[in-house]
Amino acid sequence: MPFDFLACPACGAQVKQYKNPLPTVDVIVELPEGIVLIERKNEPFGWAIPGGFVDYGESLEHAAVREIQEEISVQLEEKDLRLLGCYSDPARDKRSHNISTVYVAKASGTPKAGDDAAAFAIFPIDALPEPLCFDHARILSDYRSKKKAGTI
Amino acid sequence: MPFDFLACPACGAQVKQYKNPLPTVDVIVELPEGIVLIERKNEPFGWAIPGGFVDYGESLEHAAVREIQEEISVQLEEKDLRLLGCYSDPARDKRSHNISTVYVAKASGTPKAGDDAAAFAIFPIDALPEPLCFDHARILSDYRSKKKAGTI
Repeated sequence: MPFDFLACPACGAQVKQYKNPLPTVDVIVELPEGIVLIERKNEPFGWAIPGGFVDYGESLEHAAVREIQEEISVQLEEKDLRLLGCYSDPARDKRSHNISTVYVAKASGTPKAGDDAAAFAIFPIDALPEPLCFDHARILSDYRSKKKAGTI
Repeated sequence: MPFDFLACPACGAQVKQYKNPLPTVDVIVELPEGIVLIERKNEPFGWAIPGGFVDYGESLEHAAVREIQEEISVQLEEKDLRLLGCYSDPARDKRSHNISTVYVAKASGTPKAGDDAAAFAIFPIDALPEPLCFDHARILSDYRSKKKAGTI
């Protein structure tokens, strides 16, 4: 169903709006001790790779750097982002059809709670917490496979 | 500017709509003689990698297979799509902020004009036509580099 409806603020009539999938980015931030995951404050509850929506007029790389700064106060460089993959199953997020482009980036320094932050923690890739939200278990499984193969 | 406005069909008032970048896919279709490019019938004129918009509720891979069927009547398999990269510079398409996820896929058979088709032709990767639309010269340069390095 590629349409939904907005209410006209003047007369209340329904106004048809074309719907597209929503671009998002997630970033697997690599620290010497492991990767950073966020504990979500809202549904779906559980652990998630930090990330968020891409703004209109903003590149994927810009969104990735901005979201990581906002969520865990870690400054990344666009040039250091490595593309892991794109995840677009319409069922991957029950809230809306969100397409995630997932990057991996090495970071230094110590994360701290940013403006948007819930709790975060650092996990070795072979000792991840449960539950993982959305399709993040699959994404992290792909990450682990590529990491072990030396291809990311 | 993350908003634009729709006109209410009942009273003509302006209705604010949140804008997101629009997900698209492009596919570099590899045939024994070269890759398939489309000659665009509308502005911007020139040669382009076949592709199009991703529908709400449709995965990137599904959109890639569907667009190639519609544009050049070539049947691809989702499992044969290899991810080349994601191109999201807001200036890459003057019409709107379109984010392209670009795949590469080997194909057999003979393309023919599909429902949406303009002219198409097959080009060896070292003898591409001009002008190439959007940022497709950059995408094809990345493709050629990765092809020569054996990484795609």
